[in-house]
Formats: sequence, structure tokens, C-alpha cells
Amino acid sequence: MTEKKTTRVVILGGGFAGIAAARALGQQTKHDPSVEVHLISTENYFVFQPLLPEVVACGLEPSHIINPVRMLCPHVHIHCATVLGIDLNNQTVSLEGQDARRLFSLPYDQLMVGLGLTMDLSRMPGMSEHSLPIKTLGDAFHLRNHVLSKLEEADLEDDEQARRSSLTFVAVGGGFSGVETIAEINDMIKSVLKYYPRARACGARVVLVHSRDRILNELGDKLARFAERKMRGRGVEIILNARVKEATPAGVVLSNGDMIQAGTVICSIGNAPHPLIAQSPLPQERGRILVDEYLRVKDHANVWALGDNALVPDVSSGGYCAPTAQYAMRQGKVCASNMLATIRNQPLKQFSFGGLGQLAVVGHRCGVAHVFGINLSGILAWFLWRSVYLMKLPGLRCKIRVGIDWALDLFFPRDIAMIKVDRTKQLQRAHFREGETIIRQGEIGDKFYIIESGRVEVLRDEPAGTLHLLATLGAGDSFGEIALLKETPRTATVRCLEPVDVVIFSRKDFQQLAGSYSAFRDRVMVDLDDRELIPLDNSSTKGAI
Amino acid sequence: MTEKKTTRVVILGGGFAGIAAARALGQQTKHDPSVEVHLISTENYFVFQPLLPEVVACGLEPSHIINPVRMLCPHVHIHCATVLGIDLNNQTVSLEGQDARRLFSLPYDQLMVGLGLTMDLSRMPGMSEHSLPIKTLGDAFHLRNHVLSKLEEADLEDDEQARRSSLTFVAVGGGFSGVETIAEINDMIKSVLKYYPRARACGARVVLVHSRDRILNELGDKLARFAERKMRGRGVEIILNARVKEATPAGVVLSNGDMIQAGTVICSIGNAPHPLIAQSPLPQERGRILVDEYLRVKDHANVWALGDNALVPDVSSGGYCAPTAQYAMRQGKVCASNMLATIRNQPLKQFSFGGLGQLAVVGHRCGVAHVFGINLSGILAWFLWRSVYLMKLPGLRCKIRVGIDWALDLFFPRDIAMIKVDRTKQLQRAHFREGETIIRQGEIGDKFYIIESGRVEVLRDEPAGTLHLLATLGAGDSFGEIALLKETPRTATVRCLEPVDVVIFSRKDFQQLAGSYSAFRDRVMVDLDDRELIPLDNSSTKGAI
Repeated sequence: MTEKKTTRVVILGGGFAGIAAARALGQQTKHDPSVEVHLISTENYFVFQPLLPEVVACGLEPSHIINPVRMLCPHVHIHCATVLGIDLNNQTVSLEGQDARRLFSLPYDQLMVGLGLTMDLSRMPGMSEHSLPIKTLGDAFHLRNHVLSKLEEADLEDDEQARRSSLTFVAVGGGFSGVETIAEINDMIKSVLKYYPRARACGARVVLVHSRDRILNELGDKLARFAERKMRGRGVEIILNARVKEATPAGVVLSNGDMIQAGTVICSIGNAPHPLIAQSPLPQERGRILVDEYLRVKDHANVWALGDNALVPDVSSGGYCAPTAQYAMRQGKVCASNMLATIRNQPLKQFSFGGLGQLAVVGHRCGVAHVFGINLSGILAWFLWRSVYLMKLPGLRCKIRVGIDWALDLFFPRDIAMIKVDRTKQLQRAHFREGETIIRQGEIGDKFYIIESGRVEVLRDEPAGTLHLLATLGAGDSFGEIALLKETPRTATVRCLEPVDVVIFSRKDFQQLAGSYSAFRDRVMVDLDDRELIPLDNSSTKGAI
Repeated sequence: MTEKKTTRVVILGGGFAGIAAARALGQQTKHDPSVEVHLISTENYFVFQPLLPEVVACGLEPSHIINPVRMLCPHVHIHCATVLGIDLNNQTVSLEGQDARRLFSLPYDQLMVGLGLTMDLSRMPGMSEHSLPIKTLGDAFHLRNHVLSKLEEADLEDDEQARRSSLTFVAVGGGFSGVETIAEINDMIKSVLKYYPRARACGARVVLVHSRDRILNELGDKLARFAERKMRGRGVEIILNARVKEATPAGVVLSNGDMIQAGTVICSIGNAPHPLIAQSPLPQERGRILVDEYLRVKDHANVWALGDNALVPDVSSGGYCAPTAQYAMRQGKVCASNMLATIRNQPLKQFSFGGLGQLAVVGHRCGVAHVFGINLSGILAWFLWRSVYLMKLPGLRCKIRVGIDWALDLFFPRDIAMIKVDRTKQLQRAHFREGETIIRQGEIGDKFYIIESGRVEVLRDEPAGTLHLLATLGAGDSFGEIALLKETPRTATVRCLEPVDVVIFSRKDFQQLAGSYSAFRDRVMVDLDDRELIPLDNSSTKGAI
């Protein structure tokens, strides 16, 4: 009897591409025990991103456009975790769980990379601190609350100039996401301003800044001009051929030197390669992985790439596929088939898809569309937009909820509740009792601790299996510093000798602190030099963990 | 012609009591320009608190049980702000707006205090750091995500003990809120565990800890015993006659010395007086304001108190009213009438309400109720519970949404999406351009700044109207320290001489930091001593703002 080997497929990323691939694979392998499908997703839900602008504008509830991954992808092993590394030689990915302390590794036979893109705003000073992105559900949620908080602020404000600034909303970037977001915000503000009597008297200013000579570059000139005209007609100020040079808490400075005082700056530009891909030896061009027409990575027989992080040849046009949801979903399906075909020694299928068209909403009941070669605009395009998205939304519950939201929208005013979910805690404290372990040897360290009260012992687990006491620390002492330099497994265990209270710093807290305040840096860094960068040895390292 | 004076009524608090009063006053004064009604609410929405446990258990969406205050209370001036102080002598309240920098003051003729209660867990070490409250919508949102994250974590975890701890959920306090929350969580976990194959194998442990010999003290013995039996039958472990002595990241320690390893500790105890009331000279008993049967504060002719922060005599029983929603709503209406009657020189009405009864849900389709002197239990009580709350929910949209959620619940599994809205930023940075003002003289200071790069000038606005240069600061220098000691108006303006990057600390960040790390404290506190606690004088105070 020969033992049949299980092939493990690991999919990285829970966006349009990864979810489509996982669903297809789960479906096709549910009766095949020889294939095991694993999906790694940072969130435990899938977000239907094209509807994010409506979430921002209080038209849809955040929870209505998402779908739990575990429900969307039956027959698939789901891991809600962040991918920390891809080891192509050992065919293993490393994952970090929810509480960012434990590291897991998952070997694979076949790997599908659908991690998408990230954002990099470092070229524009102040932009990463003072602008609000619109990429994730959390971004949409925050932006919605931020816009509403500016209306509340303006209504409370006595100073005329401060009120005007609170009521100025600027979007940077005139692509689909920027245009739809600012158009929705514009309509929303116009319709809810009646609830804010003092703000209404002042009026809102809504601005779109775009670097080219027309918005929506993806669409034809005629449609883009229509969209522009409609938006201007609804009161959106569109500034073309301008870039943002600098952002501050007061607003943005444009490349022509103009300053716009604004309480809200929305950023939809600055797409950048995913750092894991940029660092990997996978063949790539401008941060996107090079694949063949079967979606297989060049020179890597068992690695596949799809979605925005892949540069997929478009067989129909001879160019490359656009980084959009419609391509990603179809790539997911084709990639799943080809991967299975490889395992089952069947012929592969070329990826070929001409695209169905483009749709955008530029205001309430007004859209623009280019579908099957035809241009549409106005209410017809808007209706098409809603129908297509309702159809494409995965899961019946999502469809019902979004459908109901859209129906309620006909009868009720928008919901202007500014849902507060922020925690006020900035630095964290923790209390431990006698005998409890604060950090454990081998866990990944990303936190630094200062003891407020109580005593702890620092122990090292020797290969022989014995625990070796390295040091005893008390109030004012600190430990866990190595984690401040890099994420690395803890080199010792810290256990409480009595009830202990600590203040906890994350690595990021500390880097900001150490990078800026010389007093703090000098003292702690000297400690680090003395204690930690010296190779670990039991006598000299007091609390170096 | 005599000028008619406008009477300004200011209501503090947007809970059941404040909203009921504001709605009644708005309605009764909408054609009366001589009365102006103002409502101060920290959130811009009203939360229907009795449904929070269902939000935690993924039965209702967070946004469905809230209603924007501006829509609920037409004809009322709404201020979304936090009350910082009540000045009874000058008849003024001071408010803090959204961004916590600007202070506003609002004079009143009549004041209604409905600020509710706060939480104080300081007597139980570790409890405020390691337990999750269930008081606000934000709490419910976090608790829901926390419970789901523990399921994700348990599914990812390799270590058996860590998995068991992730799957242990403890509620402390067996009142309505604690019982309903843990009962809902218990049912939710049981129904969604099938999506977490590795967690399911281990099973969940759900525990309720209560200090008395039976839960739900507000109900009669028979009903409470029924509730207890039902919950135990559904797998909730109920520990009676036990208090929590200590909480740590690993779990809780009970008064009998037992330790429960748990990844989730929910706290529904520790009600405490609102600090503004505790500090005020208003007559009070155990932190609740003493009022007469007309809801007027004793010895304060134009101050009224209602809701949980008032000790209202119960004319029908001879005792005091219970601090519950049904009393608060009725007090709001009566208080509004009496206040208007005072202005209009009409006779006042005594507050008299015997209470309608008590309802609680102890699991899916299982409730307990004591209404009109009758005890009900099981599905009938559960149905009554849903009907009453659906009826009591303010606003048609809320009713529709909750109704739909409850209907969908019959056909769809629970939504297990763990909505991520946390921002990762811990310490904040900001970028300013030349000429911009970082802090402005007269604004309320609650932040401290360290300059990373660039130079600023420190200016004082003299009474004569001239700006006086106090100092110039550069990289490594800090300013705004006075704000670290108390919230006080800034004593000078800081303006950028060139592009400037700063790191910003909140007062709370800094206090935690300074309180624990001696190196930091020593250096900065010495600076404070030298520069700031000395009376301000232009030569010696460099950057003391």
C-alpha cells in the first residue's frame, strides 16, 4: 500500500483575489482529501471595497459591506493572522497571531500570493500624519467619524476662521476612489447640514486636488469631462494639474504654493509595493510580481501570484491587467484551476479577460459608466452601478443588508451618528500576580516593560532543561529592550516574585520616543549599549531579554 | 415697549433622562421664543443601552441601536461636548469640544443635571487594566471584537493551555447587565464555534462570578433561581458568594483564592458617582444629588437633577427611585414640565411612578420577567422582552433596523466579523509649516511637545496688544509642559519659524511615563522645576507655556 501525500496550498491575502481563489479551491477540493487549502487573512472578514465611499458618507453601515471569511470560504482552513515572512527555500510562511506575541509557521507545497498593495506617503511631508486614507474598512469608519466630528466642531465653534477650516474637506487624488469618496461626502454634507444650524450659516467647502489635467484617467475623455462637470455643478471645487507638496494640521500646501486651510484631508494616492514582496527574491517589476499567462511566478514552479501585487499579462490586449477588483476575482478563479491542474497533471488555462467596463458614482443618483464599449452617464449609470454592485456582493445577508440600506435611504435622512470606539489608553499598564509570567522565552518580543512596583526574576531555559536565574529586577528597572531594536524571540523568561505593576511600551512608541527626546534616548540607549548589544552571557546581561 | 428676556435651559447629559427631558422641552417650547433649550452630550448619538448585550453577541449591529441626538431632539440646541465644570455662582457650564483644545462656556438660567454614573474599579488591583466594561457602545464594540479575536486566537494556537485560556470567558457581577451579557456571549460562542474547527475541539468555558448568594438581586427569588437554572443548563458556570480580588493578563483571582485563567474578563460592577457631581457643592448622598419630589435640587431653585445621578424620592413607595431607564425616561418628562411650570408660574407636579417591572434575557429565546406583579419565564418572557424593547426604541429607523436584524437572525448564522477600527498610532507626530501656530495663547492645554526638527518662536500676547518674543526653541527642545500638570489655558503662543516636526504627548501618556520611569522623570521634572513652577517672567521662562 502506498501512502498518498496531502498537498497543502497556502493562499496569502483575503482581498478579492485571495478570496476568489480560496472559494474556488474549497469548492473543487471538498471531496478530495489529498488537497488541503489554507487562507491567511489579516482581518477575519472580506471587505467589498468599492462600497467604502458610501460607508464614509453614512449611506451604508460599515458592517453591511463585510462578510466573515470563515463563512465565505467553507472547506478552507482559515488563519486570521499577519504574514511576517515567506521562506521560499524551506517552503514555509511565518505568521503572527492576534496578540502579536506568538509566531506560527506554516509549511506549504503550493503558494498563492495575493497580498495587494500598501501605501507610502513618505515623499510628501506631513501627509502620513495629517491625511486620512481610504483603503480599509477601518479607514472608512474613521473618515466618517472624522467628517461628522468636524461638523459638530463647526457647530460649537465661535471663531469664524476656525469654523471655515473645520468645514473644508479636501481629497487628494482624482482616481475612482478619491472621486467617489469626495462626491459622496459632498452630497452627505449638503444633506445633513440642516441639523447643524451654526455650521450651515457658514457653508462647507469641498475640494478635489488632482495632478493631471482631468480626473478619472481610467475613463475616456468624454465621460471624465461629464463627471467633472457634474461634480462642479454639485459644488465640488476641482483643482487640476496640482500636487500636494506638504500637509500640516491646518491643511495642505499645493505645488503652486496655494495653501488650503482644511480640517479634513483625504488621501487616495501613494500606492506602494507590499514590503514582503519588495524584500523577497521573487522576480518583480515596480513591486509587482512577474507571472506567466497561467499566473505562475517566473522560475518558481510552485508559487503563484494574483491580484494587485501581480503583473499579469493580458492576452487579449498584449499589455498587462489593470489592478482592479474585476480582474482580481477572475484571476483568483483561473489561478485556483491552474494550480489544481498542476497537482492533477492536467493542462493549464491561459488567463484572458478583456474587462467588463468601468463604473463610478459622482454624486447622489448620478454616475458615469463605460461598459461593453458604450458610455453611460447620469441616473442610468448610477442605477447600473448599484445593480452591478448588489449582484457582485458576496453572500445573501450582505445583499439584503445593503439592499435595505439603499431602500431606507429613500425614506429616511442619513444617519449622522459619530460612533465612538476609540480607546483613550495611550500607554498601557498591566498588573501581574505572584508566579505569573510576563514574557516567555521563545515568544516574539515587541514590547518593552518598566516595573512600577514589585519584583520579578529573569530566567533562562538552558538546553539541559534547567532554569537558570539571570537576575532579579525591581521598581524602576526595565526589561524587554531587545524587542525595541528588532522583533526577535525573547531570550529569557520574566516571572513575578510578588504582585507586579508594569508600564508597557510598544516598539513603535519607543522608537518615536527614543528618536526624539534626547534625555530619554541617552539614558535608555546607554543602558542598551551596556547591557544588551554585548553577546548574551549570564554574568553581564542583567535583564537583557 | 419692554424687552422680553429669553430663559436658557441647559441639560447636561444625553442618556435616557437627558434625552427625554430635551425631547419634551423641545416639543413644548417650539413655538415659544422665550425659552431656549440646550443639550450637552458627549456623544452625538443616544444609545439604547438595554440592547448592548445583543451587540456584544453579534445579534445586533452597533449602529442599529443608536440614534443621532440632533434627529431625536428637534427644536433643541445640541452641543456635542464634554462638560468640564459647573459654576453654580456664575450660572455657567464650561465645555470642551471635539479636539479637546478649545474651551467654551455656556451660561444658563435653568440647569438640569443628568450626567449618570461612572465606573471606579480602583479597589480591585488590575481590574481597570484587564477587564472589559460594558457601559457604552464603544465598550460593546470592543468586547465583541475581543471575544471574536479570542476565537481566532484559539484556532491558531498550538499550545493546549493557551488555547483553553483563550476560550475562557468570565463575567464579574450578576446584575442585569452582567447576566445578559454573559448569557448572550455563551449562546453566541456555542453557535459560531463550528467555524473554528481547532477551537471547537477544545470547547469554551463561560463563567459568571457574583458576590451574593443569587444572581439578579433586583428580581424575586423564584425568577432569579429560574434564570440561574436556565443559564447553568445552557452551560454557564455560575460562581456565587465570590468576589474578584485581583485581575491580571492571565485571568482573575477570586476571594476564595481560586484563580481562573481567562482571556476575557467582563466587568459590570463598580458604579461610582460622576466626578463633576462629587466635586460640586450640590447636596448629595453617596454621590447622588438630593432632589425633592419635583426633581428640583434642594436649596438650588434653578438646578434640577434626574436619572442615575439623582436620588429621587419615590412617592408611591416612600423610598427612592431605582437607577433604571424606565425611571430616567419618566423623570425626564416630569422634570421638563416642572421646569417649564416654574418659568411660567404654574403649579408643579410630583414625580410618581411605581415601575412597570423587570425583564432580562438569560439565553437565546429564554427570558425572565416580573411585570405588573406577575412572574413570567421562558420563551414568553423572551418575546415580551423583544416586544417591549422594540416599542421603546426611539425613532422609526432604529425600530426597522433592529426588527430586520432580529428577522435575519432567524435565517442566517451570526455575523462573526471582527471589525478592526483601531488605529495603530500610539504616540503622535505632527508636521507644521513656516508661520503656522502649534499652540495658541488662551487655548486649553492638554498636550506636551518635543521638537524633532525645525525652530519655533514662543510669543506672549501682552495686554497692550503687542506680541512679545519669549524664546526661540529648536530640535530636542520641548514646550507645553504646564499642560502636564493641569489643564489650563496656554500662557503663550508657539509659532513655527520654518517647517517643524514634533512628537506629541497627551497628559495621560506623560503622567504614566513620568510616574514610572525614573530617568525620564528626573530629567523632565528637573526642567519643569527650573523653568515652570517659578512664576512666569520673561527672562527666566524659556518655553514654559
